[in-house]
Amino acid sequence: MRRVYLDYNATTPLRPEARAAMVAAMDVTGNPSSVHAEGRRARALIEKARAQVAAALGAEGAEIVFTSGATEAAALALGGRGLSGAMIEHEAVRAWSDDALEVDAQGHVYPSAPERATLQLANSETGIVQDLPAGLAVSDLTQGFGKLPFAFNWLNVQMGLVSAHKLGGPKGIGALVMAPGTELAAQLKGGGQEMGRRAGTENVIGIAGFGAAAEAASRDLANGVWKDVSVIRNILEEALDSAASKTILVGKDVPRLPNTLCLATPGWKGELQVMQMDLAGFAISAGSACSSGKLRASAVLQAMGYDAATAAGAIRVSLGPDVTEEDVLRFAEAWLKDYRRVAARGAA
Amino acid sequence: MRRVYLDYNATTPLRPEARAAMVAAMDVTGNPSSVHAEGRRARALIEKARAQVAAALGAEGAEIVFTSGATEAAALALGGRGLSGAMIEHEAVRAWSDDALEVDAQGHVYPSAPERATLQLANSETGIVQDLPAGLAVSDLTQGFGKLPFAFNWLNVQMGLVSAHKLGGPKGIGALVMAPGTELAAQLKGGGQEMGRRAGTENVIGIAGFGAAAEAASRDLANGVWKDVSVIRNILEEALDSAASKTILVGKDVPRLPNTLCLATPGWKGELQVMQMDLAGFAISAGSACSSGKLRASAVLQAMGYDAATAAGAIRVSLGPDVTEEDVLRFAEAWLKDYRRVAARGAA
Repeated sequence: MRRVYLDYNATTPLRPEARAAMVAAMDVTGNPSSVHAEGRRARALIEKARAQVAAALGAEGAEIVFTSGATEAAALALGGRGLSGAMIEHEAVRAWSDDALEVDAQGHVYPSAPERATLQLANSETGIVQDLPAGLAVSDLTQGFGKLPFAFNWLNVQMGLVSAHKLGGPKGIGALVMAPGTELAAQLKGGGQEMGRRAGTENVIGIAGFGAAAEAASRDLANGVWKDVSVIRNILEEALDSAASKTILVGKDVPRLPNTLCLATPGWKGELQVMQMDLAGFAISAGSACSSGKLRASAVLQAMGYDAATAAGAIRVSLGPDVTEEDVLRFAEAWLKDYRRVAARGAA
Repeated sequence: MRRVYLDYNATTPLRPEARAAMVAAMDVTGNPSSVHAEGRRARALIEKARAQVAAALGAEGAEIVFTSGATEAAALALGGRGLSGAMIEHEAVRAWSDDALEVDAQGHVYPSAPERATLQLANSETGIVQDLPAGLAVSDLTQGFGKLPFAFNWLNVQMGLVSAHKLGGPKGIGALVMAPGTELAAQLKGGGQEMGRRAGTENVIGIAGFGAAAEAASRDLANGVWKDVSVIRNILEEALDSAASKTILVGKDVPRLPNTLCLATPGWKGELQVMQMDLAGFAISAGSACSSGKLRASAVLQAMGYDAATAAGAIRVSLGPDVTEEDVLRFAEAWLKDYRRVAARGAA
């Protein structure tokens, strides 16, 4: 029986458009900083991708600096600035900001001084979407980009962080998008690349893949692909809600990403659920993939007021456009089988 | 007439082995930090590549931290350490070290306190090879890796910087290699990747390409491919040496990379030569590609004692294994045609 991948918020399959752009880029030899024909050809690939990413982000006229991912973009945007954030932010953001902002029981954050704050657009574990305040300094747009309709130029946010591999591009490439006129000191130095914002020979193949993926993601979003995904997600949610009385469906009543389901079952460790589902043929996640090996309760759920046992029993099921109703019903069946065993033992 | 690419020190064509490994990696969806089967498959690709790079470097048992390139590896190895370097180092190294070390007329550097110094293995512009002192803190191995036989474990160097795209791998991926037990603080934070040395979802496709390219480069080196390249390089050098009396062949009498030729013609600007040769069908370089747009005299040649007019008249011709004797003789013909015109005007 085929495996079902339900971990789209961790990373996504490479889109055919990204693959094709990357394979084509493999034939372009030049260093984008070289002035000869070979170099100019490589440079053209980067500038094409920059325009594609800008268009997909609704960030025409803004500055797009390609980085090795959202983690590097976070370091570049946040490093040394002492902004305030909340405990629900990704570790790559929390590494450079404090946890001072309060999170309410619905997972929402309302910064009183947005110009000194960082706030994500959508949470990777719960899918909960924030209403970004005008004048916000930095927003981690990673989980929203490609799944939610927004235009950077209308957000009134100074800087945004995005990653290619969350929307069908390759891993290891991302970008920092900045409102025009933003001042920024390079952290990688020793070359004039990216207008002096980020030194180092560019990941041309990855950048080409990012551009193509962003364009395709934007087209899919406009075509309602994620609306269809949310229908499947809701079918799964209802199947579990009616059968697992001890499980909490986190974020059910607030705006969420269309593909994300966060289930917390007190007493049934998330890591164990991930392993059990893996053996049953399903890839899911307990918390963020990035904190691999750390077997601990979700900071996101604890920030929302859930107790440690509930937070430790959280899993994330995140769907993509290729996941069918049959797939999620099979998942529900497999998961409920284990749930009932755990519940019967009185653990959950 | 086909173009001839003579800018291998700027970047190299992607090796077929790297391409195949990258295309294969495109089918592996998982996030390497995920514990499920998809994640483990991605993790396995990274660990395979790490072993390939370690073997090619002669660095078995050493620690290999994948980065977004040698520029990031330089920041990681050198940032905040205040090491001494020389003016011949790459800008990405000079960004984090001082220029205190003296360079002699042959381009050699002899650090008196190697444990507080950084010294490149080979220079990108001249190809001049250093005799690295035992106990050296950091060496930029970028230009030597794949072209010169060495084993990191025998160099007695604490840390080395390498880049995939200089040996047939993709751009945007590199590594920091460290002797066992080296202490190092992460600069990219917010995830446990690379044993806590470097956060961020890994560039799996690029890493797979790097591993395959390193393995192939190591095999080619052992098979004497670069010895053959040096024969072609020497044919070109002799053709120019006998016909261009005002041109200095920098580094001719000292150990050099097998593929590199640095020509300095006082009064004939390097950038102009690059453009003239580009129009004639040849890709060459004036100084490092990384300082694109900066029309200025080579710091490397000035450090060796050449005057500004000579340093400004430098070009680099760097060959790869696919360059033939016919190619270089065609280049010599084209270049000498322009040289004679310039010399006749009395400029050179």
